[in-house]
Amino acid sequence: MLKFEVLKQSKEKSPSGSVRARLGKLTTDHGQIQTPIFMPVGTLGSVKTLSVEELEHCGAQIILGNTYHLYLRPGCDVIEHMEGLHEFIRWNKPMLTDSGGFQFFSLAKLARFSDEGVAFQSHIDGSRHVFSPEKAVEIQMILGSDIMMSLDFCMGYPATEKQAMDALNKTTMWAQRGFDFWKEKGSINNLFGIVQGGMFSKLRTLSAGQLTKIDFPGFAIGGLSVGEPKNLMYAMADHTLPLLPDEKPKYIMGVGTPEDLVELVGMGCDMFDCVMPSRNARNGQLFTSFGTINIPNARFRFDKDPIDTDCNCYTCQNYSRAYLRHLYKSRELLAYRLNTIHNIYYYMGLMEQMRCAIENDSFVEFKKEFYVKRGK
Amino acid sequence: MLKFEVLKQSKEKSPSGSVRARLGKLTTDHGQIQTPIFMPVGTLGSVKTLSVEELEHCGAQIILGNTYHLYLRPGCDVIEHMEGLHEFIRWNKPMLTDSGGFQFFSLAKLARFSDEGVAFQSHIDGSRHVFSPEKAVEIQMILGSDIMMSLDFCMGYPATEKQAMDALNKTTMWAQRGFDFWKEKGSINNLFGIVQGGMFSKLRTLSAGQLTKIDFPGFAIGGLSVGEPKNLMYAMADHTLPLLPDEKPKYIMGVGTPEDLVELVGMGCDMFDCVMPSRNARNGQLFTSFGTINIPNARFRFDKDPIDTDCNCYTCQNYSRAYLRHLYKSRELLAYRLNTIHNIYYYMGLMEQMRCAIENDSFVEFKKEFYVKRGK
Repeated sequence: MLKFEVLKQSKEKSPSGSVRARLGKLTTDHGQIQTPIFMPVGTLGSVKTLSVEELEHCGAQIILGNTYHLYLRPGCDVIEHMEGLHEFIRWNKPMLTDSGGFQFFSLAKLARFSDEGVAFQSHIDGSRHVFSPEKAVEIQMILGSDIMMSLDFCMGYPATEKQAMDALNKTTMWAQRGFDFWKEKGSINNLFGIVQGGMFSKLRTLSAGQLTKIDFPGFAIGGLSVGEPKNLMYAMADHTLPLLPDEKPKYIMGVGTPEDLVELVGMGCDMFDCVMPSRNARNGQLFTSFGTINIPNARFRFDKDPIDTDCNCYTCQNYSRAYLRHLYKSRELLAYRLNTIHNIYYYMGLMEQMRCAIENDSFVEFKKEFYVKRGK
Repeated sequence: MLKFEVLKQSKEKSPSGSVRARLGKLTTDHGQIQTPIFMPVGTLGSVKTLSVEELEHCGAQIILGNTYHLYLRPGCDVIEHMEGLHEFIRWNKPMLTDSGGFQFFSLAKLARFSDEGVAFQSHIDGSRHVFSPEKAVEIQMILGSDIMMSLDFCMGYPATEKQAMDALNKTTMWAQRGFDFWKEKGSINNLFGIVQGGMFSKLRTLSAGQLTKIDFPGFAIGGLSVGEPKNLMYAMADHTLPLLPDEKPKYIMGVGTPEDLVELVGMGCDMFDCVMPSRNARNGQLFTSFGTINIPNARFRFDKDPIDTDCNCYTCQNYSRAYLRHLYKSRELLAYRLNTIHNIYYYMGLMEQMRCAIENDSFVEFKKEFYVKRGK
């Protein structure tokens, strides 16, 4: 069972108000996690291009798996036979799985949402499937994730208030059913609820109010970073985070850029996941303390420096920008790995820096320097 | 400068005649190599998917780079600026580069061969270039390879005797010119000559006779495994290898399967290179002591065993066939790496086994068991 402790609540003041950042410790059956934390995304049972040893080198404490993807490939029968996802992929630290809700919105064909759940066709072969809130939990129990997520109804942007209200209602109903099923099955591992409500503050308030009546071990905010302007995303997070109980972990799903992490940690968010560090790495975009660089750029052709001279990752300790550029331009598979190692290491290091800053009452100073280094 | 010692010449007899296998030691500026040796191919400055640490884990003692590819990308100006290929790719053991001859035959557009050299268009952007025998050596000097290869004229199969004769004549002429240029430049590193002659024994005899008049530190046999039947390839190798001086290393280029290596070591060949272990890995074909397996096969869906229970490679020590199949079927980039680690490790292990067998006068027995395990 999950245990969450808030080790320190920041009492700093920033020009824009109180810093709500907090330092925490989350304990699962597969070990402890320091929060705020970023979770690299291992969609199909691999954080793309990385071995588990490389993930550990990068400082990953917990990774995310996608239930929708793993259900379709390799299938629950395989993962059950292989004794769970941890064993299958050989990752023995904590793991979180989503519920499929986001993929029904973003990827599945012809997803139809009803009170009963979601009927959809596989994006791979068009085969038909149904996820009920109970089934979403059942599959995640087979995966054996330390933190499971309730089935939710995620929408794009823009959406009308009526659409958002309908999605919210289903999400709440499904959350209760998933929770009841989880309790009935002995409360194995942990199940988090997901707040929806689109870009409407009052619906976010309503959703959070309904969800937090259910005794989930943690809460997430879903349906952000779905195409809305950045300031609207921040406004929704800022509005919703304080509505969630402070004694439980707060997780914003699918977010975001380094700037997003800094802003949202400041608002009191504890957990994040995003494909950005790994996906952008495969597109040649690398994160550094002074901003992002595009490694295919011609200016790196003769560059003997590492990506970031201050970085201690395997890639920066060993390879020049010129070599990385050459590999990338030549589409050598090694390029994607070396870039991913750097970007994940950067994200994990950024979270570590923020944890230190909260610990040392220097989050405001950290944030100022973070932007100064980027010329902002 | 290169030093080659034959440590042991097999005196075993096999049903098909004397075993000509030999054990040797090749010393270069970047260290020693035990022969017979297999050289993994690092076309563009990376053995596809592998880091240099993984290459070392696999037991690689020397790798090969392709002059044609590296000349086009990243270009000699970059590699010169980066202080040579070793430094650029961070491989500090011996390296061999080919001359481009095979790529002019297999890859370049509109290659035109004259006494002067080869005029060709890049397969990437159609740009026009000329390689003279001198330029082929000059480029390899910039790359800084421990063993450079003479520019040769490689042909496909079938070819007429007239075509083979013409290619042979140019190859010999170019070999002399490349050698003279190399001497003039101070005999930096080492330059090997390449025997051609198509599938005509008398032309192979002629070519070997002409080439061995030039005091190259080593000799290669080119133009094999270009589409001819296996027994013809073996016949040509068997005919040509004894024509090369025993006190110098003998290298058959671009060969081959595990069976090929066993046969050709038995004929006295010291060095090999081939894309097969790495390319086949990326196509899901894995080498084992009991033959090859195709990892995407449905029979591996629930298979908890490693690829080869006798194998000590990183992949076999850690991952199941079921996981490897899943990664491969899902096109996860990690699949290509894990497969490549196994295949290169297998090839390096096979060479190691052969070296031990020669040392212990058990090459005939080794070869018999090698085939028995594969059910042959």
